[in-house]
Amino acid sequence: MTDPKRLIVNLFEMNTVGHITHGMWRQPGNQREHYKDIGFWIELAQLVESGGFDSIFIADVLGAYDVYKGTADIALREGIQIPNNDPLLLIPAMAAVTKHVGFGVTFSTSYEPPFTFARRMSTLDHLTDGRVGWNVVTSYLPNAARNFGLEEQIPHDTRYEIANEYLDVLYKLWEGSWDDDAVLIDREGSVYTDPARVRPINHAGQHFKVAGPHLSEPSLQRTPVIFQATASPAGIDLAGRHAEVIFTGGRAPGAVAKNISAIRDANERNGRRRDDTKFLVQAAVIVGRNDAEVTEKLDRYRRFTSIEGKFVHMSIPFEPAAHPQDISVREALTREGKQDVIDAGGMPLDITVGQLAKSVNESWDQQFFVAGTPTVVADEIERWLDAEGIDGINLRQYHSFETARDFVELVVPELRKRGRVRDAYADGETLRERLFGEGPRLPERHYGARYRGGKNLD
Amino acid sequence: MTDPKRLIVNLFEMNTVGHITHGMWRQPGNQREHYKDIGFWIELAQLVESGGFDSIFIADVLGAYDVYKGTADIALREGIQIPNNDPLLLIPAMAAVTKHVGFGVTFSTSYEPPFTFARRMSTLDHLTDGRVGWNVVTSYLPNAARNFGLEEQIPHDTRYEIANEYLDVLYKLWEGSWDDDAVLIDREGSVYTDPARVRPINHAGQHFKVAGPHLSEPSLQRTPVIFQATASPAGIDLAGRHAEVIFTGGRAPGAVAKNISAIRDANERNGRRRDDTKFLVQAAVIVGRNDAEVTEKLDRYRRFTSIEGKFVHMSIPFEPAAHPQDISVREALTREGKQDVIDAGGMPLDITVGQLAKSVNESWDQQFFVAGTPTVVADEIERWLDAEGIDGINLRQYHSFETARDFVELVVPELRKRGRVRDAYADGETLRERLFGEGPRLPERHYGARYRGGKNLD
Repeated sequence: MTDPKRLIVNLFEMNTVGHITHGMWRQPGNQREHYKDIGFWIELAQLVESGGFDSIFIADVLGAYDVYKGTADIALREGIQIPNNDPLLLIPAMAAVTKHVGFGVTFSTSYEPPFTFARRMSTLDHLTDGRVGWNVVTSYLPNAARNFGLEEQIPHDTRYEIANEYLDVLYKLWEGSWDDDAVLIDREGSVYTDPARVRPINHAGQHFKVAGPHLSEPSLQRTPVIFQATASPAGIDLAGRHAEVIFTGGRAPGAVAKNISAIRDANERNGRRRDDTKFLVQAAVIVGRNDAEVTEKLDRYRRFTSIEGKFVHMSIPFEPAAHPQDISVREALTREGKQDVIDAGGMPLDITVGQLAKSVNESWDQQFFVAGTPTVVADEIERWLDAEGIDGINLRQYHSFETARDFVELVVPELRKRGRVRDAYADGETLRERLFGEGPRLPERHYGARYRGGKNLD
Repeated sequence: MTDPKRLIVNLFEMNTVGHITHGMWRQPGNQREHYKDIGFWIELAQLVESGGFDSIFIADVLGAYDVYKGTADIALREGIQIPNNDPLLLIPAMAAVTKHVGFGVTFSTSYEPPFTFARRMSTLDHLTDGRVGWNVVTSYLPNAARNFGLEEQIPHDTRYEIANEYLDVLYKLWEGSWDDDAVLIDREGSVYTDPARVRPINHAGQHFKVAGPHLSEPSLQRTPVIFQATASPAGIDLAGRHAEVIFTGGRAPGAVAKNISAIRDANERNGRRRDDTKFLVQAAVIVGRNDAEVTEKLDRYRRFTSIEGKFVHMSIPFEPAAHPQDISVREALTREGKQDVIDAGGMPLDITVGQLAKSVNESWDQQFFVAGTPTVVADEIERWLDAEGIDGINLRQYHSFETARDFVELVVPELRKRGRVRDAYADGETLRERLFGEGPRLPERHYGARYRGGKNLD
């Protein structure tokens, strides 16, 4: 008899008032407006560490949502990912008051130079003793592009081409620039670092030119755990080469199987093992001590949900209510003169406006969703976990800190009984070791390992 | 009778093993090699807060020192500002365990986009409740330029022109994009932010194009306290417009008077008060309970000092010992074929090689320097403080945490007796209020205030 498959539990966060459950900040007692205060993050980190969470993941965007109705006003009014603050700066504050929980963070490869980002992640890996991961994104908001000197977004496939080169620069700095035995700290011999074991990277590619050497000495993991969320062909290609954890979503275990299988095929094409990538499904988990508590929470969350907030967040480029519900999305876009949106792709064009509005409205429980008492919730989590390819959940929040506290107090004890969550953290474990049982460095078969010892630097 | 002038006490730090006192990491018991660990910074921050320090300032460079002998090998071997880690990421860790001490940090205007830096500083100002300052630098290391895609350094005056526009973008984001009353957090009315009180900045200048709006809601100080260290004409011009605190140095109070007076003149030209800028002098303070302790420390610090480390740090472009000591620096450079260094300026060309080497060797105690028992040290600090224009000290460190602990345990009590250091922090005081007795925002007469309420955005 083998042990049951362990559940990876990740808290889905963002340094903002309204992340993905729009309208929820209005609930009485919700602490969301304190997102800007250090005390909010200290309390949250200690809370989830008390429940044995694997990690806290902090999403990010670099602009305002201004596509729906052509304005950022609704995003501002409803607090939809604006105001938002820098995500990286939360990690040292939370690391100062915890010992085990890991931290993932979104950072875009499209707008900031790789050299300083490489040092920021090395710094975080040092400060956390190897507890950090990085979610590679290429940014999708048109306003973000305009905040960095561009007239419009970089085309999708070019963004992924840049991302690939960006990652190359980072691996050269993280893996190739300093040898493991470079730092001697030899007081008698007066040698802090042996210069023969440090080298510039002299990267000169199509998008970046970076001399090096890396400024940071090697940290425990060197390369942070690489996260990604993707579905496009270019994204799957990137994931197959680089990603160690994938964020995914879907209404049923089967719905995510195709994406998982495509990424595992891409892993193999890149000389990696099929299970070298873990998959976390976004999870709405609503739990109560009894049915009345569950119903109260469900009703409350539904009541505070902002439908318009979802149109804003999904950047729907027209107002569905302003059109007949039975014409196609393509027709509605044509009537609004938005041929550019049709050409850009990304919108489902052949469904009706009514279907589009309905599917956006239903996105509230579109992802892995369960509401019930602890045993009901644990049963459903186990059903997902035992399905092919799912390794854990990315817990979306409806109320701070109700959602996290409910999970810690009600769900974790039940999952521990079932052997799905460990009773305690292993001491001194890095995030990579926790997720894969090996590490703390990238495995030799990972693309990034090719630069070790200064190999393949040209 | 007026109260005696209060001393501003700032700890001079860097996220690195060897900052400005080269060779010192080799001392037994020195904790410098733990600079990469979060515990180092937690202990340091709590220590200096226990002694009522005004702030901790974290310097930074974005490359390796490779001018002396044309190699970075000596910098690596001696741990001269390499390895180094990101400075901003230390602040949240220290803020998590302190309530009062302020934080200053170096960030360069030459290589990273202003939009994300603006958000980083706003985030820090939120997380620290208004305890942050920013040291504006334009970077001087040739290697740094090569880490950001350039072949060589941007010329000095162009760097300052870029810095001025960079600051303009930042003020527009920090001061102009969000009104004070923009954030309503109106649960009943379902309005987090009033969109009518938030605006894009649409900056389109010679070096930057930034749409906005700023992503962060207003923090306590909005603009962090602006620090600068400068002496060049372009630097003085920048300081007169922007700087609230200047780092300076010199062997005697009189030696810094000229620089102070030039900056005060520049303040006036910019519509500011002469005393709108505070001056902190870099201070080597060596203190012991008795003369024997003082002598032991002085001998030890001298014994561990690396002379070659100073040549590296000062980027001396030739090896003084390889030339006759009585030829001029110009002649030595000519013999090495380094006409480009002569043309670039910045080196004293007409002194002899011997004089250059001697002056570098003496730089150890070139700045404000005193060694003695607490009363001797306090007398000398008071002599400086009562001289025209000096407002405080920037304490250089020889040993972690001996230097800071000595100051807290031996010097602060003596300065408190004399009314030069307050007995306790004022609750809820921002860094700007602590330094100026007004705030927390920039005064109306400061250049950055012109964008308030969206004025002067064009």
